Amino acid sequence: MDDRIIALETRDVRFPLPEGAGSDAVHSGSDYAFATTLLVTQGKTFGTGIVLTLGNGNQLVCRAIEMLAREVIGRNVEELMSTFGQISRQLANDPQLRWLGPHKGVVHLALASVTNACFDLWAKLRGVPLWRLLLDLSPQQLVNLLDLSYLEDVLTSQDALSIFENQMSGRATREHILQDGYPGYDTSVGWFQYEDDKVKSLAQQALQRGFRAFKLKVGSEDGSRDLRRASMLRELAGSEAIIMLDANQQWTLPTAVKMCRKLAAMSPYFVEEPTHPDDIGAHKKLADAIAPTRIALGEHVPNRVMFKNMMQAGAVHFVQVDCTRVAGVSEFITVSLLARKFGLPVVPHVGDMGQIHQHLVLFNHVALGHDALFLECIPHLQEHFVAPAKVQNGVYLTPNLPGSSSDLRGVRPGR
Amino acid sequence: MDDRIIALETRDVRFPLPEGAGSDAVHSGSDYAFATTLLVTQGKTFGTGIVLTLGNGNQLVCRAIEMLAREVIGRNVEELMSTFGQISRQLANDPQLRWLGPHKGVVHLALASVTNACFDLWAKLRGVPLWRLLLDLSPQQLVNLLDLSYLEDVLTSQDALSIFENQMSGRATREHILQDGYPGYDTSVGWFQYEDDKVKSLAQQALQRGFRAFKLKVGSEDGSRDLRRASMLRELAGSEAIIMLDANQQWTLPTAVKMCRKLAAMSPYFVEEPTHPDDIGAHKKLADAIAPTRIALGEHVPNRVMFKNMMQAGAVHFVQVDCTRVAGVSEFITVSLLARKFGLPVVPHVGDMGQIHQHLVLFNHVALGHDALFLECIPHLQEHFVAPAKVQNGVYLTPNLPGSSSDLRGVRPGR
Repeated sequence: MDDRIIALETRDVRFPLPEGAGSDAVHSGSDYAFATTLLVTQGKTFGTGIVLTLGNGNQLVCRAIEMLAREVIGRNVEELMSTFGQISRQLANDPQLRWLGPHKGVVHLALASVTNACFDLWAKLRGVPLWRLLLDLSPQQLVNLLDLSYLEDVLTSQDALSIFENQMSGRATREHILQDGYPGYDTSVGWFQYEDDKVKSLAQQALQRGFRAFKLKVGSEDGSRDLRRASMLRELAGSEAIIMLDANQQWTLPTAVKMCRKLAAMSPYFVEEPTHPDDIGAHKKLADAIAPTRIALGEHVPNRVMFKNMMQAGAVHFVQVDCTRVAGVSEFITVSLLARKFGLPVVPHVGDMGQIHQHLVLFNHVALGHDALFLECIPHLQEHFVAPAKVQNGVYLTPNLPGSSSDLRGVRPGR
Repeated sequence: MDDRIIALETRDVRFPLPEGAGSDAVHSGSDYAFATTLLVTQGKTFGTGIVLTLGNGNQLVCRAIEMLAREVIGRNVEELMSTFGQISRQLANDPQLRWLGPHKGVVHLALASVTNACFDLWAKLRGVPLWRLLLDLSPQQLVNLLDLSYLEDVLTSQDALSIFENQMSGRATREHILQDGYPGYDTSVGWFQYEDDKVKSLAQQALQRGFRAFKLKVGSEDGSRDLRRASMLRELAGSEAIIMLDANQQWTLPTAVKMCRKLAAMSPYFVEEPTHPDDIGAHKKLADAIAPTRIALGEHVPNRVMFKNMMQAGAVHFVQVDCTRVAGVSEFITVSLLARKFGLPVVPHVGDMGQIHQHLVLFNHVALGHDALFLECIPHLQEHFVAPAKVQNGVYLTPNLPGSSSDLRGVRPGR
């Protein structure tokens, strides 16, 4: 009975950022903050769950975690995780808290944090990294982790089971990724408030460190600034480099059409969050208007139902689901299944700074046959993690410590 | 300078409900609660803003109100309201809090509460009921109240101005509604947990009180219970009565298609919230599959962007926007403009128990030419309002006290 969860604590952890770091067209002057769940077992093992916020409001997510996580106290971890999809659904549909969403906003972020703590705890108790834990589960055990409600029209439990089963035979050939790793891409060269000179020197350093893919923030009031920065980065990185542009929802649909057509000259790999994340119709119209330029989104898409709608509408080409925005590792897997069904690649947004997603990219590739295109790399919070993700020569190395790599330095139960 | 806002207070006000009242297929055992904003001027006038929640979590909305409302402290009310659309946009895009939505969940509910307090205060300072205040504004002044961002593809400021201007000439003929009132419909006859006998006797009483329109909760696990209750109510109320069915998101798309086809036999006026409120595609498919049965939704649609998408997709026939779910009176008007543009009727959901919406139905009819079909009537919190909405012979009477009818008994600043 050592694995019984006997205590819950939350931590409102905030980190100020260096000047200009983390800035985009919409968010400025932010801290990065983690609304952190700590779940402790009778045997003194603890699980850490994190979700990202931008500072103010982080405390609201912590309070919501305390309300939701009551339901997992007293449960044995193995038993809890054997039917986690049910508890996830129950928590998401709490008869009172559901009103505050449903399945979005503060309460859904809280569910993500609780869920991620459960998965971290589970992996630690089994003594394996999260990717290994997930790969060792049978297709049926994986499906039992998921809440597939409201997806009945495109992804039943039987569909999900079949996808996992059909991918079993190809696993062996894909497992080389566990030795080889997969590329990171560098977001830190092109924060919105950085001057041209800083972008230049950071890009040069990143090239020397082995990166071949970069992201640049766009969405300036003066569009010519975007064009200048984008061509500068293209010239510097060369025609073979992958460059992605991120507008962080700043554009209206008409502006997005105009700017994407102009920016097409520097061949962006994709344009990210061109406009409001709820605007399925606008993304579809934009996709049609700017083809072959492709659209990435997901950072602010809160749940599987919205992702389903984006995919059904043909409004998205790269699925940037984030396990610290949707309901944790569990709903991340659900959205990855949806993406598989629609033939779309998953390139996670890293609200966790890549710590948990480095596991999930491995899982998605081996268990679901998703391409491991690359994973965003934002190292500016690395020093705060107990076991920061390792990127060598631009390649993510496979983590081997037990858990989901979410533990934060000095953030432990009872302190 | 008497109208300068000098203080903000919040109240977490909760009311337990009688057994079974307020119950639906998804929400049970709830309280009704108002996350309440109180704004106080130097001259000691105060404005009350409310949003509904179901109890637990109401305190989170109160905390978010305190974060957002700082921006209106120190402002003169007339000046603030002369460009309220700008402040609304600024608050909705707070660089840190925006992450928690955007434009949905706890933080957006908080913005609704703050906004509604501003409008209540404004009307009280002018000494007129909210409907009168709004009808006295010029088209340009009305447009200045609105944040139309992300609607550029269907509703520019110029479009909004034109709609108001074009409706000016017809106002005189529509103002008779101020004397005549408009019908209420009774939701309290058919809560989900009520036994058949209770539904029967409540419906008989409601008929005697002059109601000719009723709503019944559906979404039972056993669909035959829904069919039995629905035909019972139809038989009792007669073929001329308007009967609406409300599934409160309980159905999957396949179940919704099946149930709506069966329920068509009793000719529902509309089917409300058949499935998940984010599922634009499912509502559109359902609409096509069950025509001519029509769909109503909005209770859980958080913002103008989602409403735009629902309307563009042809997924909704009755727009149930609620000024305690979207960003208050301001975004309610924006969504009403959108509905006018798409030729759809507005039938508000009443998270305010009809107190504020009784004003907004009058405004929508006179200023926008919307049909005043009817307004939901749920009297079970009436005793808690200082000036409860009056419904006589099934007809809403025009409120004449200054403000938005939001003041709650015993809920005043400084207590």
